[in-house]
Amino acid sequence: MTRTIEVVHSTNKKPKPNADNIAFGKYFSDHMFVMDYSEEKGWYDPRIVPYAPITLEPSAMIFHYGQTVFEGLKAYRTPDDRILLFRPEKNFRRLNLSSERISIPAIDEELALVALKKLIEVEKEWVPALEGNSLYIRPFIIATEPNINLTPANSYQFMMILSPVGSYYKEGIKPVGIYVEDEYTRAVKGGTGTAKTAGNYAAAYKAQERATEKGYSQVLWLDGVEKKFIEEVGSMNVFFKVNGEVITPELNGSILEGVTRMSIIELLKDWGVPVIERRISLEEIYQAYDRGELEEAFGTGTAAVISPVGELNWGQRNMVINNREMGELSRKLYDTLTGIQTGKIEDRYNWTVEV
Amino acid sequence: MTRTIEVVHSTNKKPKPNADNIAFGKYFSDHMFVMDYSEEKGWYDPRIVPYAPITLEPSAMIFHYGQTVFEGLKAYRTPDDRILLFRPEKNFRRLNLSSERISIPAIDEELALVALKKLIEVEKEWVPALEGNSLYIRPFIIATEPNINLTPANSYQFMMILSPVGSYYKEGIKPVGIYVEDEYTRAVKGGTGTAKTAGNYAAAYKAQERATEKGYSQVLWLDGVEKKFIEEVGSMNVFFKVNGEVITPELNGSILEGVTRMSIIELLKDWGVPVIERRISLEEIYQAYDRGELEEAFGTGTAAVISPVGELNWGQRNMVINNREMGELSRKLYDTLTGIQTGKIEDRYNWTVEV
Repeated sequence: MTRTIEVVHSTNKKPKPNADNIAFGKYFSDHMFVMDYSEEKGWYDPRIVPYAPITLEPSAMIFHYGQTVFEGLKAYRTPDDRILLFRPEKNFRRLNLSSERISIPAIDEELALVALKKLIEVEKEWVPALEGNSLYIRPFIIATEPNINLTPANSYQFMMILSPVGSYYKEGIKPVGIYVEDEYTRAVKGGTGTAKTAGNYAAAYKAQERATEKGYSQVLWLDGVEKKFIEEVGSMNVFFKVNGEVITPELNGSILEGVTRMSIIELLKDWGVPVIERRISLEEIYQAYDRGELEEAFGTGTAAVISPVGELNWGQRNMVINNREMGELSRKLYDTLTGIQTGKIEDRYNWTVEV
Repeated sequence: MTRTIEVVHSTNKKPKPNADNIAFGKYFSDHMFVMDYSEEKGWYDPRIVPYAPITLEPSAMIFHYGQTVFEGLKAYRTPDDRILLFRPEKNFRRLNLSSERISIPAIDEELALVALKKLIEVEKEWVPALEGNSLYIRPFIIATEPNINLTPANSYQFMMILSPVGSYYKEGIKPVGIYVEDEYTRAVKGGTGTAKTAGNYAAAYKAQERATEKGYSQVLWLDGVEKKFIEEVGSMNVFFKVNGEVITPELNGSILEGVTRMSIIELLKDWGVPVIERRISLEEIYQAYDRGELEEAFGTGTAAVISPVGELNWGQRNMVINNREMGELSRKLYDTLTGIQTGKIEDRYNWTVEV
């Protein structure tokens, strides 16, 4: 890595939000990482600069044709005051896979990691110390070319911004109610479901609105083809424990490959718990429930790590899972993963990267 | 309409591009229309102002979750120097339908039309006089709230920008070669295919790249479920003339309802030409071809109006349609529609709106 990353320090430091009650996504630190792309230069001018607005032409392609990808990961402060990232190389890998799907040029993943570490170093005071809090990292790329011709852009900007976030479980972990969405579709094979790209997210709001109206926390997405097979829960991957075995939908071309998902599968394998990635029909889950074999269900993602499912509603059919309590395996996975992330448990997997 | 639209005139007029050779989407006029939305005020402050960059926080929702919709229509200069819009109310209607799908608040369609007419009036010198040229109009809405929480935004901006464009057919109408895309999917029922939203467009670049590599102009999209039924061609609707009857895919929940499509159906009905909207399999088209009954095929959209298909390629199967010549009906539809749009033919349908 010979490229130098210029740092321009902010002279106008913002106050930090109250650690006890930080609303997600509203506060941003004093600096950000920026790198530009042009056809002539490739990715150039990687730099850390004061957090500031972006100025774009109204014709900038991001506003018209949706060429944009993003990632989400966190920096955690350990009890002995070190700062850890959790498998950040997986996020930059996925960012490039997302980019490939919508014709955005790949970034140098190693450079991105070096840049992120440097950014966090500059912003180390923004990594919260309070248990459960963390510094959320949002890398993203936007097409900036001012041109409304329908073609991949020839200029882009890659940015990383940082947002301190509170605990996802301020009042303890409470299993959530999930509503099975059978009208709206999140993604389909051949579409963009495997890419973390903006269009997938706005498309999910209508279904979420309906779930909220009906008193549920999230939707369970079925496949877009037969509307029979389980894909994701909200913006999380999903796991079920049935008769001692853990199952999760296979990476079928429409599911996002979560870093938490990947880590859970690796943990379970290491623990000798049977875990299988395969196609799972909703009917199968209901049958397991009727037989009394559905032991646990949980969503997985960067924000919640593990989000236990206490209820699953599909029209007239309703399941209450594990008496609406967090299951033993869900708890063990949560404690282990968050323990490793925050440096409270030894990281035998080399997942964490110290800043 | 009691709301007044403030006009701030530009003091710095740009030169107009050379009318003989205008690249699509690169030139923009001196003014634009802007209107803001907040939860408290609703849509407010409609105004025509000098064309200028947009400044947004890096956390603005448009950059992360894709809440954005757009439209495309044109203003034409008639031989007797009037300026006409073609069914603009249909575009604003569709803009609101698109917005509804991704949880953007509706605009006042009447106000939008008043604003557009006023904007074109201010920019009347930007409506090209050269035959075939026109002024492309791009209305669009973006989510502006600075917040990366995954939820619909509470602030938006609606804009209309204007771009002079050259003739789509500078060298005469030449039927194009189309490649059947059977891996990538444009849209699926329950997704966002019926909405004109950014995410749908970047998602189509990979397929277009492949078509280009193989020497074809556009892709033909199949349905995302069975990969058997015809949906669209590139970003156009598609029609086939089989044994004297015109068929086009029905509005099935994944196809965009084109204003040109709608107008063609109305014209054909008025002319007494049988026209049917229904599910159409690709296999059926190949069989009609083999029987010698496939007479014409064409895409329809605002840019090209009619784009005749001269060749359709599906792996080993290839069809050359009407000897790669523009069909008689395609020609009549093109001449009639462009004639009405440019005021050369009497508008018996009340489709045009004079500025």
